[in-house]
Amino acid sequence: MLSAGRILQRCDALARHSELPGGLTRVFLSREYRAAAEQVLGWMRDAGMRAELDAIGNVAGRYEGARPGLPCLMLGSHLDTVRDAGRYDGMLGVITAIECVAALAEQGKRLPFAIEVLGFGDEEGVRFGTSMLGSRGVSGTLDPAVLNTRDAHGVSIAEALRQFGLDGSRLAQVARKKGEVLAYAELHIEQGPVLEAEGLSVGVVSAINGFSRLRATLHGEAGHAGTVPMHLRRDALAAAAECVLAIERIAQSDAALVGTVGRLEVKPGAINVIPGEVQFTIDFRAPRDTLRQEAVRSAVDAVQEIASKRRLTAAIEKIQELGVTACAPRLIEQLERAVAAQGLHVRRLPSGAGHDGQAIQAIADVAMLFVRCKGGVSHSPAESITEADAGVGARTLLSFIERFEPRS
Amino acid sequence: MLSAGRILQRCDALARHSELPGGLTRVFLSREYRAAAEQVLGWMRDAGMRAELDAIGNVAGRYEGARPGLPCLMLGSHLDTVRDAGRYDGMLGVITAIECVAALAEQGKRLPFAIEVLGFGDEEGVRFGTSMLGSRGVSGTLDPAVLNTRDAHGVSIAEALRQFGLDGSRLAQVARKKGEVLAYAELHIEQGPVLEAEGLSVGVVSAINGFSRLRATLHGEAGHAGTVPMHLRRDALAAAAECVLAIERIAQSDAALVGTVGRLEVKPGAINVIPGEVQFTIDFRAPRDTLRQEAVRSAVDAVQEIASKRRLTAAIEKIQELGVTACAPRLIEQLERAVAAQGLHVRRLPSGAGHDGQAIQAIADVAMLFVRCKGGVSHSPAESITEADAGVGARTLLSFIERFEPRS
Repeated sequence: MLSAGRILQRCDALARHSELPGGLTRVFLSREYRAAAEQVLGWMRDAGMRAELDAIGNVAGRYEGARPGLPCLMLGSHLDTVRDAGRYDGMLGVITAIECVAALAEQGKRLPFAIEVLGFGDEEGVRFGTSMLGSRGVSGTLDPAVLNTRDAHGVSIAEALRQFGLDGSRLAQVARKKGEVLAYAELHIEQGPVLEAEGLSVGVVSAINGFSRLRATLHGEAGHAGTVPMHLRRDALAAAAECVLAIERIAQSDAALVGTVGRLEVKPGAINVIPGEVQFTIDFRAPRDTLRQEAVRSAVDAVQEIASKRRLTAAIEKIQELGVTACAPRLIEQLERAVAAQGLHVRRLPSGAGHDGQAIQAIADVAMLFVRCKGGVSHSPAESITEADAGVGARTLLSFIERFEPRS
Repeated sequence: MLSAGRILQRCDALARHSELPGGLTRVFLSREYRAAAEQVLGWMRDAGMRAELDAIGNVAGRYEGARPGLPCLMLGSHLDTVRDAGRYDGMLGVITAIECVAALAEQGKRLPFAIEVLGFGDEEGVRFGTSMLGSRGVSGTLDPAVLNTRDAHGVSIAEALRQFGLDGSRLAQVARKKGEVLAYAELHIEQGPVLEAEGLSVGVVSAINGFSRLRATLHGEAGHAGTVPMHLRRDALAAAAECVLAIERIAQSDAALVGTVGRLEVKPGAINVIPGEVQFTIDFRAPRDTLRQEAVRSAVDAVQEIASKRRLTAAIEKIQELGVTACAPRLIEQLERAVAAQGLHVRRLPSGAGHDGQAIQAIADVAMLFVRCKGGVSHSPAESITEADAGVGARTLLSFIERFEPRS
């Protein structure tokens, strides 16, 4: 029997393994991470799985299918957190997957495929500044050179693994081959307010959005706020304000697109001085690469046009870019059938945040199920879900697992 | 004979009395200030004036009229500078006034009034954070309690005066009475680009603008830049951008008005987080108090309306406010006649920056003549004027002095 109450209790229990008391911070290969991993390994074994830490520090459990050694349906999420985190982002997906396996094991039910549950050791990338180390290891896309990356104390990933009792040189053994993994399905809190706004417990992810990040610098002319008449000004902040609104309008042009100016800095930044220089960031995300690329082009054009109209110069540089990870249509359909099977409205929505599926897609089709979270808040102690929604999420995932149809 | 070359040489000479070599910083009652003051006292005496430091540290020279003890026409400007200053802001007015007196003395010309030239010791307010100490002393509007104000090293104005060999308790003797001063006329660089844009050497100031300074804080909601759809956002920066443009539009509604958002800070200020809070400043200046007050009201309304439309809250507080100092129409006309007498186009313009006349108006009508400066730049080593313009300024001021008609 699935127990939503137990799922939430386990999220609470893992939240106690924190670097700071009274909050939740748990980074990769820390003492707290070991304690959390040990607890998850125990729950996996209780659920009838064979479970161990792999060479890159993931908690990996396996529930055999109708016969040993079958290809697996991979489930999971991550066990590390951001600083001052919530208790569901990541952990809910691992704990719910274990709950589903426990429900199968309780009935002695074996499926025509194995189930593996992965608790990835690093998705957030807080300690080493490199995200998705765990899922990149499993997908064979983690360059061994990355293990030389050092944390703020100068400890490399390879050294941290060794201190943790693991052997980074065995990294290749962690990598799964195509065919060994039939599909990857991850349950995660939404981290956005769409489901809450529409009164839905769960939603099916269409794609993990691609993103483009840019930095724009506008050079105008600083001047005395009292002595330069308006028509002679080349005010970098007034120009930047137009850019911010242009970027907002571009982002509003398609419901699937989001665009954000998150940082904006004004120089010299004195109450009585006309701003001479403004630098700001642009972040676009979309479930279609062409949509995002078109938005970037429009934004670059808009910034240049605004600057030129106001006799300023604009410099725009791309910081980072990553294409869409589309969820597999066949998996989306199967997840949607699992939602509909419970008499619930089916809602398909993109994921704006990044997830381990972006790494796993190198070896398997991926799918994601989102669970409503309060106010859309994540990466915050205020992160919250209801027991009822945790239950809907678990029943949907179990229904998906039980009816899962591998491609072949 | 007026010598524009000598005026510029003397500006150069004073610029050498600086706290930092290779730049110009000269604050009130410093060693550099003493050296500059001694030099100016010498030039005053060379020009036939009786000259001394007054009790508040101003350099004060007097050229008697047709008979001793007549009321005076007061000329002057200030001898202190901002940090990393230009060499004309303030000094040009003092040196040009001395040059005019020298030209009269050379001809043995006495007028039906005395001329006093004041080199005010503190207008910028850099050392003690309180501006116009010198002119407030002369106008009798300096509260003796202000002399307890301390600089960054804990030295009070009273102590600094004492160390300088002056006696702050004699402050009352510095104050001129109404009737002793027939008018105050100050020549100053424009500190704005209007004269340059219109190809004019000099302009006559209509008024020293009043100003209003406000601080606005917009509270929206921070959120994940990837997961919150545009229509559910309460982005404090997008709202602030609308406010910046609304303030610009309000300021553009009247050619005499200027409005500036000089500071703007975004929280939390991360590339991937929707801004939850933005704080920005507003600075309005105008030659008519009603115009400025109306602008402030419009801006407050606009900010509230924008915040409300976007479901944010806005808090706006007034920081500082000072009304207009109008130049006296009869003096404006006399200065304009002096400009026209040289065959030059007459241009009347307000002063956006503050000046000693704001203090002197308590005891006398005030007038100001602006001299074109390169690019409108001031408070910068790039501050620059031409010898030709210095000559036009000096001839205009001398013409004004020679034809000056006291009210009575």
